[in-house]
Amino acid sequence: MILVNTGKGKGKTTASIGIAIRAIGQNLTVAFGQFMKRNDQAGEQTVLANLLGERFHAKGKGFLTRPEQFPSHRAASEELIGWAREQLAAVDMLVLDEALYALQSELLQENELRDLIAMARKQDVHLILSGRGCPQWLEEEADLVTEMTEIKHPYKKGIPAQKGIEF
Amino acid sequence: MILVNTGKGKGKTTASIGIAIRAIGQNLTVAFGQFMKRNDQAGEQTVLANLLGERFHAKGKGFLTRPEQFPSHRAASEELIGWAREQLAAVDMLVLDEALYALQSELLQENELRDLIAMARKQDVHLILSGRGCPQWLEEEADLVTEMTEIKHPYKKGIPAQKGIEF
Repeated sequence: MILVNTGKGKGKTTASIGIAIRAIGQNLTVAFGQFMKRNDQAGEQTVLANLLGERFHAKGKGFLTRPEQFPSHRAASEELIGWAREQLAAVDMLVLDEALYALQSELLQENELRDLIAMARKQDVHLILSGRGCPQWLEEEADLVTEMTEIKHPYKKGIPAQKGIEF
Repeated sequence: MILVNTGKGKGKTTASIGIAIRAIGQNLTVAFGQFMKRNDQAGEQTVLANLLGERFHAKGKGFLTRPEQFPSHRAASEELIGWAREQLAAVDMLVLDEALYALQSELLQENELRDLIAMARKQDVHLILSGRGCPQWLEEEADLVTEMTEIKHPYKKGIPAQKGIEF
């Protein structure tokens, strides 16, 4: 199945982590890759790296803020895409966290994502994609799409991002 | 902070698992309890029990379907509530998965949940609550509320629940 976690609210990445943990507990073979995120950017990375070893990949360059960063960020994405293709031949589930952010930033091309989806379907691999801004074609292509909606958020009360919650 | 994952869509429990994993990776002390769910009901339970030991608690009786089941289900809830109170004195984060389902089913009383929230605030513990049907008072009381909305779901195409995805 192709699953998408999207929307502006919290929970897209954490739901993707949770489904990976659920699948690991069911003895499925799981790979987890993160676009954009650096290797030391979020708490889940330590635990996932311990659980998954080489099947965890987060070698991004952080969020893209300036045009001149594009080539190095694209190179990191290409490395992740190559890794993802290899994983699709060997796993039951592949999570690509922030894939939709990468798509919006053109660090992941639409045809590359369509190819990954086609490979996942062919290999009968569950592919989990997360990030804001799910395009219409992907909503049509996916089997399950969940939108995380922010009902109430503490940033609006001036509370800063907290360790273990937002990262 | 008090965080709520609610709504009819997928991702409430998995986002709660994910935030626990994130917090564990940041070396926070985490406890994870599940209302309703039996100990062998979902894949995440094995992994969480391995990571958390006695700080993982899932001794529910499954979903409540007949009135005569209420006393035994309530007893299981009372055990979980007692465990949760102990955890609140000792951890940085407590997840109570399906707390809102338990609240709707009256297996968890409103005053009991209000007490747990007050204890969490006093001890500066992050309390994560999940389940459908967040009541208005809790939306007002919480710091962060995310609604998971189903945009597209494969059950409607007749695809059954799958291991590692739904459980």
